[in-house]
Amino acid sequence: MQIGKIIGTAVSTKKDEKLEGLRLQIVEYIEPSGKSTGSHVVAVDSVGAGVGEVVLVACGSSARLTETSKEKPVDAIIMAIVDELAGEGSVYYKNY
Amino acid sequence: MQIGKIIGTAVSTKKDEKLEGLRLQIVEYIEPSGKSTGSHVVAVDSVGAGVGEVVLVACGSSARLTETSKEKPVDAIIMAIVDELAGEGSVYYKNY
Amino acid sequence: MQIGKIIGTAVSTKKDEKLEGLRLQIVEYIEPSGKSTGSHVVAVDSVGAGVGEVVLVACGSSARLTETSKEKPVDAIIMAIVDELAGEGSVYYKNY
Amino acid sequence: MQIGKIIGTAVSTKKDEKLEGLRLQIVEYIEPSGKSTGSHVVAVDSVGAGVGEVVLVACGSSARLTETSKEKPVDAIIMAIVDELAGEGSVYYKNY
Amino acid sequence: MQIGKIIGTAVSTKKDEKLEGLRLQIVEYIEPSGKSTGSHVVAVDSVGAGVGEVVLVACGSSARLTETSKEKPVDAIIMAIVDELAGEGSVYYKNY
Repeated sequence: MQIGKIIGTAVSTKKDEKLEGLRLQIVEYIEPSGKSTGSHVVAVDSVGAGVGEVVLVACGSSARLTETSKEKPVDAIIMAIVDELAGEGSVYYKNY
Repeated sequence: MQIGKIIGTAVSTKKDEKLEGLRLQIVEYIEPSGKSTGSHVVAVDSVGAGVGEVVLVACGSSARLTETSKEKPVDAIIMAIVDELAGEGSVYYKNY
Repeated sequence: MQIGKIIGTAVSTKKDEKLEGLRLQIVEYIEPSGKSTGSHVVAVDSVGAGVGEVVLVACGSSARLTETSKEKPVDAIIMAIVDELAGEGSVYYKNY
Repeated sequence: MQIGKIIGTAVSTKKDEKLEGLRLQIVEYIEPSGKSTGSHVVAVDSVGAGVGEVVLVACGSSARLTETSKEKPVDAIIMAIVDELAGEGSVYYKNY
Repeated sequence: MQIGKIIGTAVSTKKDEKLEGLRLQIVEYIEPSGKSTGSHVVAVDSVGAGVGEVVLVACGSSARLTETSKEKPVDAIIMAIVDELAGEGSVYYKNY
């Protein structure tokens, strides 16, 4: 999974019918330190994550293994909201 | 999914027979701000998107999960036309 | 799919038995303008493309969805020879 | 597979239910020489690897082929702890 | 497939049980000219390739379509040893 921060939402009315009702979040990929990598992805939200939250994104066929995304033409899913990223004796990020 | 702008169409007469009738659009990947990333993809259109439109592209096996692309040797599909890309209190892109 | 130009052929006698009889073309990825991206891929040819031709390459599991490549350990296939790449009022590439 | 070093752990309470009980390790990709590539991945641990250890990470659908990760929305798994990386007459890395 | 040169072997005792008996080769990706791209992959060997040999590596789900790698958590396989890489009137690499 990649670490990212939600920076917005994509709105689309003309889309594949299987996408109806899915929430499409714009995620900026970040390093554990919080620094942006400069890359983005638009991912389906399966956990109720909102703008500003740090999340984990799974890509490829794995993105279709949640109830939300099953058999849909999506290649990226937000499957966790990050509380903390920590090493031994160091904390990269915390949200509490 | 990746955000991109359609910049043209690829025409091919000699191709795998499963590709007959598919529309192949040339998509330039862009950042939410609209800036080009410098990368391109040729994607099958499943939503009637035309040159100049901002779209979402799904890649990999997920690209085969639309009626248009089912069981075909394609690895990229346009599955949504973007109306708006917006953050909290900011709009990156709008098409209306 | 990615746009590329065939620059040569890979010859191999010691290979997985499922690869017998497949033609392995060396493809240099190019931008729509024809400029090299600096990356290469070795792709199975399913359309009779030769050195110098501009082609479309599908990667990943999608590369196994042609008669030529079915259930074989290959991750890249040439599934179309490009006749023209064109935008609105501009032609990036033409082969006729 | 990619070579990486575990630099920490990701903690998440709000996540897809299939992720319950999985250990999410933050892995920094490294070259055989041990030098960081600058990229990271968060991978599910299937072998009991801890912070500081050099591991192999499998990505994509292959990440779901362990008992730990079967049918779960994860796209990266730690499937081996590296003891040694060695060429002919040279050792890039050893852990003993 | 990508072109690479085997530069060593990865040794692991603590690993997913499905990996028992597989040979894990460290491959440095190269351009057709032989120049290193600076990237590496650890791939399962299915053709008896050794250090110093130029090989083709298939990645993703395709890496599981050999007898050696079937249903195993591996995402890269060596499926051919390269004898020659040649264009029209030019030879990039030869091994004989």
